Amino acid sequence: MKDAPFSSIRGLLQNAQTVLVLSHIRPDGDAVGSLLGLGLALQHAGKEVTMVLADGVPSNFRHLTGSNQIVRRVNGNFDLTATVDCSDIARTGNVLGERPVDLNIDHHITNQNFGKVNLVDSAAVATSAILAEVLPALGLPLNRPVAEALLTGLVSDTIGFRTSNMTPDALRIAAKLMEHGANLPELYHQALVQRSYNAVRYWGQALTRLQKKDRLIWTALTLEDRRAASYPGNDDADLNHILSTIEAVDIAVLFVEQNNGHVKVSWRAQPGYDVSQIALKFGGGGHPAASGADIPGSLETVQNQVLEATWSVLTANNGS
Amino acid sequence: MKDAPFSSIRGLLQNAQTVLVLSHIRPDGDAVGSLLGLGLALQHAGKEVTMVLADGVPSNFRHLTGSNQIVRRVNGNFDLTATVDCSDIARTGNVLGERPVDLNIDHHITNQNFGKVNLVDSAAVATSAILAEVLPALGLPLNRPVAEALLTGLVSDTIGFRTSNMTPDALRIAAKLMEHGANLPELYHQALVQRSYNAVRYWGQALTRLQKKDRLIWTALTLEDRRAASYPGNDDADLNHILSTIEAVDIAVLFVEQNNGHVKVSWRAQPGYDVSQIALKFGGGGHPAASGADIPGSLETVQNQVLEATWSVLTANNGS
Repeated sequence: MKDAPFSSIRGLLQNAQTVLVLSHIRPDGDAVGSLLGLGLALQHAGKEVTMVLADGVPSNFRHLTGSNQIVRRVNGNFDLTATVDCSDIARTGNVLGERPVDLNIDHHITNQNFGKVNLVDSAAVATSAILAEVLPALGLPLNRPVAEALLTGLVSDTIGFRTSNMTPDALRIAAKLMEHGANLPELYHQALVQRSYNAVRYWGQALTRLQKKDRLIWTALTLEDRRAASYPGNDDADLNHILSTIEAVDIAVLFVEQNNGHVKVSWRAQPGYDVSQIALKFGGGGHPAASGADIPGSLETVQNQVLEATWSVLTANNGS
Repeated sequence: MKDAPFSSIRGLLQNAQTVLVLSHIRPDGDAVGSLLGLGLALQHAGKEVTMVLADGVPSNFRHLTGSNQIVRRVNGNFDLTATVDCSDIARTGNVLGERPVDLNIDHHITNQNFGKVNLVDSAAVATSAILAEVLPALGLPLNRPVAEALLTGLVSDTIGFRTSNMTPDALRIAAKLMEHGANLPELYHQALVQRSYNAVRYWGQALTRLQKKDRLIWTALTLEDRRAASYPGNDDADLNHILSTIEAVDIAVLFVEQNNGHVKVSWRAQPGYDVSQIALKFGGGGHPAASGADIPGSLETVQNQVLEATWSVLTANNGS
């Protein structure tokens, strides 16, 4: 952020009365937090602000002040269009039409610098952390709702201050946001801790069936489990997170049976492994440490194929 | 900590060559962290230090530098005896014999001020947080092993910076400890995240049997579950923590069947309830938000009695 184009941003904001702010599809805490942080701060400064999330606000962020103002589509014209936490324009969900982006604020190293003015700091732990420093520098106050939104973004993107990119500065920014009225324990709980009763019951049978071979663990969530627990989604109810906390494991594989005859498979791996190559082989993709694929076939067939391929990667690494 | 008796402590330390440091039985991260933090800092200053935990070092803290020096019994005489994180002398596990305590450093509001010099700050989130400020003030350096121990204590006692007593200062202390070489993500993972394969399998059946009535949830871990999962302990494998993260729940009760014909019961409650009164009725005790009891009887009998009593408390509160 050494070359932060503050004067350009200040100029953009000075001349704008109507402002459109957007963040990304499948929004996480940093998408919602940085959207509300910038949007509410601009409102407080007297701007007319429209905040957009193409997929709407996830239920676990609806407690945030201003979240009820967030809309899913763009209508009208604006003096200024800003995106937050979006590495490219498509991430907004293609709601912009022909509108160009004036201001692009983000922390993704892959950011395409698609704005007229780009404020991209890949060393920042969250876009919300960038805004916590930028807003005061622009003369926009960190009032309580703004601080709550930004602290939510910071806590979410660092999974509670514990991702490997954590810095002392990120902790000091969080301290400052607390001093501006954000209640850390409450916001933390709402963003990261809460789980539904049905989600936790849904885990039960899968944990009972959890299996281990050397440093590989795996289990499956079946359609029958989903029905028995009345779990409404077709996802893994965050069971992946629990599997990734088990000690002495290098690769964890989770199978989620779908009602279209497919099986959703997800891999989580320790550093040194690349599970994206396995996912790719099965028509999926992802990162070395976290990948997924949607594979046609019965649960049993898919399990056998995937475990065999995964075992090869695990043992190849052991030998290297 | 306004009246911190720094000059008294400095005097005590100056005149001591051999130092005994102790923390409490059933040690948690702050017990181990504050013990190692003070002990290693004194060693670094040239003192001969004996560090004691009557129950030894739990496996999830054995990665900390110096943890292999910690012994379980006290032998010999010392110029100075210090306790950390102990609210009363009995908490040391009665290993002191007739030795008086010279220095008592703690953050528990219930501390009995049993030392010749007492440094008790109940506003501190952890005894480790007190030491992170006191050690430099005493001229004792925060080198890397000391910073790692203290950050472990701070992270453990705040369950990862999210207990209701969190302060901006606690975050700034953590930032300072990172700058002294403590790797927050790694220490966090080792102190709080890791779980054993058998522990997670042990949860399975209990989660499948999880039940809910209004805002009360409960389940049981049976001896059969323990055997099936080869879980070595007679505790709840931290399943209580998972139950306490379920949304729209006021009281969670967990029953753990014991092989002596008893059932260990634990309650977790939201603010506004006092589950310690229920625990007390069954011969146990605790705090309004977290209590436990060890009750003779079959799992079924104990469940029925406890759920009836708990339901009364829940409904009495609803009516108030």
